[in-house]
Amino acid sequence: MSPGLATVTRGRLLFGGDYNPEQWPEETWQEDVRLMREAGVTSVTVGVFSWSRLEPRPGVFDFGWLDRVMDLLHAHGVGVVLATPTASPPPWLGRLHPDTLPVDEDGRTEFWGGRQHFSHSSAVYRRHAATVTEALAARYAGHPALTMWHINNEYCTYDHGDEAAARFRTWLKRRHGTLDALNTAWGTAFWSQGYGDWQEILPPRRTHYLKNPAQVLDFRRFTSDMLLECFTAERDIVRRHTPHLPVTTNFMPLFFGQDGWRWAEEEDVVSVDLYPDPRDPLGGQEGALVQDLTRSQAGGGPWMVMEQATGAVGWRDVDRPKPRGLDRLWSLQAVARGADAVCYFQWRQSRQGAEKFHSAMVGHAGPEGRVFQEVKRIGAALAALAPHVTGARVTADVAVLHDWHSWWAGTQQARPFDRADLPVVLRAWHRALWEAHLTTDFAHPEHDLSRYRLVVVPQLYLLTDTAVDNLLSYVHGGGTLVCGFLTGVADQDDRVRPGALDARLRALFGIRTLHAWWPLADGERVGCDGFDGTLWSEELEPDGTAEETVPYRGGELDGLPAVLGKGRAWYVSTLPVPEALRGLLAGIAADAGVRPVLDRVPPGVEAVRRGDLLFLLHHGRDPVTVDVPGTHRDLLTGETLTGRAELGRYGVRVLRAEPA
Amino acid sequence: MSPGLATVTRGRLLFGGDYNPEQWPEETWQEDVRLMREAGVTSVTVGVFSWSRLEPRPGVFDFGWLDRVMDLLHAHGVGVVLATPTASPPPWLGRLHPDTLPVDEDGRTEFWGGRQHFSHSSAVYRRHAATVTEALAARYAGHPALTMWHINNEYCTYDHGDEAAARFRTWLKRRHGTLDALNTAWGTAFWSQGYGDWQEILPPRRTHYLKNPAQVLDFRRFTSDMLLECFTAERDIVRRHTPHLPVTTNFMPLFFGQDGWRWAEEEDVVSVDLYPDPRDPLGGQEGALVQDLTRSQAGGGPWMVMEQATGAVGWRDVDRPKPRGLDRLWSLQAVARGADAVCYFQWRQSRQGAEKFHSAMVGHAGPEGRVFQEVKRIGAALAALAPHVTGARVTADVAVLHDWHSWWAGTQQARPFDRADLPVVLRAWHRALWEAHLTTDFAHPEHDLSRYRLVVVPQLYLLTDTAVDNLLSYVHGGGTLVCGFLTGVADQDDRVRPGALDARLRALFGIRTLHAWWPLADGERVGCDGFDGTLWSEELEPDGTAEETVPYRGGELDGLPAVLGKGRAWYVSTLPVPEALRGLLAGIAADAGVRPVLDRVPPGVEAVRRGDLLFLLHHGRDPVTVDVPGTHRDLLTGETLTGRAELGRYGVRVLRAEPA
Amino acid sequence: MSPGLATVTRGRLLFGGDYNPEQWPEETWQEDVRLMREAGVTSVTVGVFSWSRLEPRPGVFDFGWLDRVMDLLHAHGVGVVLATPTASPPPWLGRLHPDTLPVDEDGRTEFWGGRQHFSHSSAVYRRHAATVTEALAARYAGHPALTMWHINNEYCTYDHGDEAAARFRTWLKRRHGTLDALNTAWGTAFWSQGYGDWQEILPPRRTHYLKNPAQVLDFRRFTSDMLLECFTAERDIVRRHTPHLPVTTNFMPLFFGQDGWRWAEEEDVVSVDLYPDPRDPLGGQEGALVQDLTRSQAGGGPWMVMEQATGAVGWRDVDRPKPRGLDRLWSLQAVARGADAVCYFQWRQSRQGAEKFHSAMVGHAGPEGRVFQEVKRIGAALAALAPHVTGARVTADVAVLHDWHSWWAGTQQARPFDRADLPVVLRAWHRALWEAHLTTDFAHPEHDLSRYRLVVVPQLYLLTDTAVDNLLSYVHGGGTLVCGFLTGVADQDDRVRPGALDARLRALFGIRTLHAWWPLADGERVGCDGFDGTLWSEELEPDGTAEETVPYRGGELDGLPAVLGKGRAWYVSTLPVPEALRGLLAGIAADAGVRPVLDRVPPGVEAVRRGDLLFLLHHGRDPVTVDVPGTHRDLLTGETLTGRAELGRYGVRVLRAEPA
Repeated sequence: MSPGLATVTRGRLLFGGDYNPEQWPEETWQEDVRLMREAGVTSVTVGVFSWSRLEPRPGVFDFGWLDRVMDLLHAHGVGVVLATPTASPPPWLGRLHPDTLPVDEDGRTEFWGGRQHFSHSSAVYRRHAATVTEALAARYAGHPALTMWHINNEYCTYDHGDEAAARFRTWLKRRHGTLDALNTAWGTAFWSQGYGDWQEILPPRRTHYLKNPAQVLDFRRFTSDMLLECFTAERDIVRRHTPHLPVTTNFMPLFFGQDGWRWAEEEDVVSVDLYPDPRDPLGGQEGALVQDLTRSQAGGGPWMVMEQATGAVGWRDVDRPKPRGLDRLWSLQAVARGADAVCYFQWRQSRQGAEKFHSAMVGHAGPEGRVFQEVKRIGAALAALAPHVTGARVTADVAVLHDWHSWWAGTQQARPFDRADLPVVLRAWHRALWEAHLTTDFAHPEHDLSRYRLVVVPQLYLLTDTAVDNLLSYVHGGGTLVCGFLTGVADQDDRVRPGALDARLRALFGIRTLHAWWPLADGERVGCDGFDGTLWSEELEPDGTAEETVPYRGGELDGLPAVLGKGRAWYVSTLPVPEALRGLLAGIAADAGVRPVLDRVPPGVEAVRRGDLLFLLHHGRDPVTVDVPGTHRDLLTGETLTGRAELGRYGVRVLRAEPA
Repeated sequence: MSPGLATVTRGRLLFGGDYNPEQWPEETWQEDVRLMREAGVTSVTVGVFSWSRLEPRPGVFDFGWLDRVMDLLHAHGVGVVLATPTASPPPWLGRLHPDTLPVDEDGRTEFWGGRQHFSHSSAVYRRHAATVTEALAARYAGHPALTMWHINNEYCTYDHGDEAAARFRTWLKRRHGTLDALNTAWGTAFWSQGYGDWQEILPPRRTHYLKNPAQVLDFRRFTSDMLLECFTAERDIVRRHTPHLPVTTNFMPLFFGQDGWRWAEEEDVVSVDLYPDPRDPLGGQEGALVQDLTRSQAGGGPWMVMEQATGAVGWRDVDRPKPRGLDRLWSLQAVARGADAVCYFQWRQSRQGAEKFHSAMVGHAGPEGRVFQEVKRIGAALAALAPHVTGARVTADVAVLHDWHSWWAGTQQARPFDRADLPVVLRAWHRALWEAHLTTDFAHPEHDLSRYRLVVVPQLYLLTDTAVDNLLSYVHGGGTLVCGFLTGVADQDDRVRPGALDARLRALFGIRTLHAWWPLADGERVGCDGFDGTLWSEELEPDGTAEETVPYRGGELDGLPAVLGKGRAWYVSTLPVPEALRGLLAGIAADAGVRPVLDRVPPGVEAVRRGDLLFLLHHGRDPVTVDVPGTHRDLLTGETLTGRAELGRYGVRVLRAEPA
Repeated sequence: MSPGLATVTRGRLLFGGDYNPEQWPEETWQEDVRLMREAGVTSVTVGVFSWSRLEPRPGVFDFGWLDRVMDLLHAHGVGVVLATPTASPPPWLGRLHPDTLPVDEDGRTEFWGGRQHFSHSSAVYRRHAATVTEALAARYAGHPALTMWHINNEYCTYDHGDEAAARFRTWLKRRHGTLDALNTAWGTAFWSQGYGDWQEILPPRRTHYLKNPAQVLDFRRFTSDMLLECFTAERDIVRRHTPHLPVTTNFMPLFFGQDGWRWAEEEDVVSVDLYPDPRDPLGGQEGALVQDLTRSQAGGGPWMVMEQATGAVGWRDVDRPKPRGLDRLWSLQAVARGADAVCYFQWRQSRQGAEKFHSAMVGHAGPEGRVFQEVKRIGAALAALAPHVTGARVTADVAVLHDWHSWWAGTQQARPFDRADLPVVLRAWHRALWEAHLTTDFAHPEHDLSRYRLVVVPQLYLLTDTAVDNLLSYVHGGGTLVCGFLTGVADQDDRVRPGALDARLRALFGIRTLHAWWPLADGERVGCDGFDGTLWSEELEPDGTAEETVPYRGGELDGLPAVLGKGRAWYVSTLPVPEALRGLLAGIAADAGVRPVLDRVPPGVEAVRRGDLLFLLHHGRDPVTVDVPGTHRDLLTGETLTGRAELGRYGVRVLRAEPA
């Protein structure tokens, strides 16, 4: 069994951030470690973009500065997550080997001068990445500061060039075996695309008109797999040197480009970058969604916030800081939902470069700034909670299903539903559950779902046969299933299933025929009995077996079913407005025996249980009172509360029941 | 004389669609022909994108499957429009001959993986296209199922590459003769563009700033001509094998890229793809416009709907199905306006590929779906009408002038009018006539117009001297002419005529000086005496000879003429709001002796005569009653109606007068 | 000392435009000179885009036509500003030397067929430009019509190609000396961008993610310098031939791509192209801003409107003509603000080419058109004013600071403020001063500011140390300084200053800490005591030394200072709504002893003094009366006015005080 986050935390919550001392004179380092101690920092990530500093010329390494950094941090009790620097090759690599540069679908090269200018398919890049990783691992394997490895950073690149084309062909041979099988899977009979030679196959490049969607889908699969090969290659190198230390790479939240389930399997620790918008009144819900997904990728075990921001991020349209208290609220929310590590990009705000307006733990305003004062409060809170919470688990009776392959397939040109990206639909469904205080895991449609009382499918355009089997046996085994529209449309090759909705699912929901999809325009609503639907509607003919039906009202669909409930299976053919979807899911959950974390919680307050602790998180600014039956001790303040808890602006309570 | 559509229809209306059996297992073919018979299908188009199936490797042909398809269709009484497959070359062609791929103005290659990845200028492409066409024609020339040829599909591509450049030079030499003439025609004295060597001339490629508009105009002419060369080359091959069978290629409706008048001359049958938006309340009017234009391209004779959709199309922003009854209404509307063939893309909805969400006659819901049930009703209606309508003509006293060269010239960078594309203006004028129940042809500005009582010019930015002569002699011969703004601005080389409005036209309308154009912003209106104008206004100084003047009211143009009428010639310097333009044209038409098809028709009902039949088409959902003097028999229901006709939701009546 | 505009004007105001006789048959030339005389034209600019006519083949020159043009103009008393034709190389240059074509950051070549298709870095281009310039200068140096040289046209191009890369490296070596210094200046420690070899350095080309902002900043500096090298190379050639004649090149108004201060130093005459939108109710203010800036670039001396339009411009979204009187108003406004030359693009409207819809002095409507009639009135007005105004100076007590380097640095990716471009902020501040009738110069932040009573800094994101020193010593010397937000953020290398606002400036304004920027969304407002702010707000902690504070009201910033005034230094952390900013600045100006040009001026009327003349310019259409103490003579009408002046639609009075 591979080492996990517990190897690193050992009873503490990790707190810290990316630390880039190479951007600063060494005298600043001394202030850094002093301030880290002041803020309760326990862990920093070093070296994420240090390649040109570590290997300034090909094969010439300079570790001196990093030796000093490692020693200094160790001397001050700060553990180091050491990163391989492979996300940003030094300029010399691109100049000496232009074939390491990625090429986009229009044939345009991505040059150095930014970051991530590497082709995942380039053999030369891979060889150089392995070399620097090997050198780094060899040098620091035994360093006492080293606690974990961080590979690369936010894997996210594409390549449509010739070397990628060659690897794509190899990957396709492995997936499809023969050209005939590929032609069948891609439906190349359409538009005369039949391939007669493997050499004819290209990544999807610029075309005159619509691209073959199955080719695009396989290219996305291939891309995720190539990036994963880059990850595992470096992981295996560092593992060979430090088999006792865990390895991670940081995901971007709900990121399109990587198969998050597949990748998580290859990590020892699942980590994520968490950037809800401080201006978004539902930013806390977006955070909760990402946290639930990440925890689920981590198999329910503790996970890591690798990056968050104390305020502005630099790339946001209206780039607002976090108001006083919001950083603490969202940090503790992550802990409530299973994080054992709360880290930032970055420790000290850069004065130069493309991200100098991204906030940091020590901002441009320095230690006197409001932000660093809040950071110290957060560090203190984490220290107070650590003994009670580290390693404890969050349990959920509800699972939301998500699958990257379905997302990839559903996001094609000329698709029926392009008014919103899948995350909009996912967020709407998760929000309904979140506002109903129903703690939620995420799961893959082929996972064992039997431990959940309720499974929710916001939208799975693509379902494999195995996944359909899984859903059916879940319901037959007593589970309650709710499916949103555009689920079960296509099979694993993006082949539309007869009837455009899997026949067995139709039978499950009591649908005879799906006559037509009726997408709605922006802002358009469709009347239903008791509520309005948004985004979508469907012309469904029921088969008469559903016990419960909510009909459409008015318009062309008047009287046809908007929602069907047959036994424990529900189909929702529109996106009900938020309060309606919440009511619908809350009712179905109650029938399925799922209880909210707490009853009568005021709006804006989030209640979560982790282990034996009850977290109350207040996402508003006006004081509220929450009924909490029994007597509890607040681990943050030491107060004893009986029957109720008051929460101020962005307030947090972490309550442990006291013996009566 | 070449064979026409009557060769194929022989008393029947063609009904069917694109049939792509190569996408389906052969067992499905049996169901196909059974359902075709059930639906009254008489004609299918086969082979449109079959090149890679017909010639899987260079020079290696496989006709076996197509033999079986042809035989099967013939055995079931379904005629075949056989398509050359040249719109989508097989992958091997692009791989072996990258010079067959088109290059856009930024130098980006369009690869295979979609469709239409061929350069119209590539000699290699043309040779391969000829080879496969020859093989196809040779094989099926004598097949009894074969009724017509369909060349390529929706010709629409551009090429800015080097081979296109070479052909462009040759084309320019033919057009202009000498470099001096070209320099004069292009106005190369502006911005130092004088050419001293033919080799210096390129297609319009990426420039720093505005391109030479005459160069762009000639490039559009060239492109249309090159595509036409591709068409005629294949046409001539199939004609050699089957001189008795007509040849067509399908136009996209009001498509920018082809000179529709020139192309129609080269076709035996004019066919069009017809895709109004089911959500558009004026979709029926858009259909009528395209139908009137296509009928006029066909010289008034019968024409063909090559493609329409039973519902969604895949590429539409909000891709709505056709509500119950709309497909029948629009199909019969096409017949009313002269179509003898009503076909769809496609017979059976694809399960794979880029257009799997484009609806079909047999949709994903299968034969039980609402759509196929409606298709059967349409088939039955067409069968009932066929004996009475096939070959009958629609006659019109009104012509709307349209010219692609003018459209091309008017659609330049840095033009005075870019608030709307020409089709918006065309639609507005046609709508006014359509709502006034004035049946309308389209005509080229150099056509003989003497058979029309009223000629309407929504906008002809470019008018050749010949066209100006033609308009003048039309009016002098007693015709009534109404011209919209931005007409007669430029000559055949996009050279602005002195005064920015042809002097003879100014004299015709009673205009001394056009001082300035006053374009309006989006949503802005200009007051006129009795109505508002939109899009445009003009600062005109009359010469005092116009008898009728509608002045602008308010603003900078207060008191200046918005509309001038001098004898039978009218100039309209703004776009009046719809009801005002309708009133204006209805009044002018009445004065010119043009009568509406029927009087007192309720809003939303369209009345058209074809031969001796009166079609009433109801574009709304609430029942209406139409006064129809005399006694008629409804050919669809067999009812006898006296004095009035009732029409339900999307209702259609096809009435033949009964002896009193 | 080099010759200036006075060499050319010699007591007259220049009036005329670009004259392109090569686009017209020679018979038209005769009408041209007759109409020029009729309109009072004194100067035309010839040859701007004549290269392909002057040198139709490489090294083969044809000056005959230009000889005739020069002679003809001279014979009719029209002076000639002769342009080098180098802004649009002939097609043969691009064909023979593709390396002369610019390449954009995506690697796309900009071809001939438009204009400005030259790489500023191409040695071949530079050599050919020198050759044609040399030939032109040699031929016409002694021509009596020649009054001034105009180099190229609207320098504005970029090049990211390989030859530009090589020159960029050379330029960088000169700027930074060593690679170490460059790495430090660019902050290449961020994202592993350390350069180990000069050959690795490229212009900023397409990257996967954000570019290095210091690299982009230096590339903008380099681009401005390369274009300037092109300018000075040609300037030096013509100077050698005609040391007695001034040289100019025309700026685009407030153009991003050239360091306007640096360029102006190299010119003998500063000229600008002036194109406010006739539809913009504040178009007159935009004109005033550009005029104030251009006058300041000219060191306060007379300057030249090289181009304006009599109406439409061709490239504007809604391209409205100038209503009757507006052209005269804006022309006289330029004179009021220091112009001694009022010229147009162009004399006669082209019938062909990309700008045939750009209006002209003689439009498509010809001499009878309204436009030419107005042109004659303007010519007459200029002739009347010339003896009184030519060479007179406009003096200002207020300076607005502007710096292109700061603009370049502030306009980076991932910047805190991207809701508006800098010109929006500049215009807002200038508008406040303009509406308060406070005549305003522009100045560079390192200029000597001591002659101004009030210095206003709308936004200078980048301030060099020298500039900070300059501002401080200005205030310490008794000057009053008002700074807007995002000033003093970065140093000359775009390195964020500690605290994100220069420490000495913080002390100057009484700010202890800048905790965070709070950008506002589009349309969002922030409450302040007495007014609303827009675009921006800041979380500032005062140090208690400011005497005056306007606090924010409501929201997260409630009670924190929005505006601080400490002695003579003011900081404004938001953009107050227009009337509030006007009031604020008017009050501060009054305290600083700055008086408006005139008191109690009605809204919409602009009052400016030039020399001993008072210009009253009415930007509205309804008549107004202005109180003007004393007795004046109106130089335009000859009227004597006492106590008040009436102004009609777009009316102008030019008043000279009469002895009492």
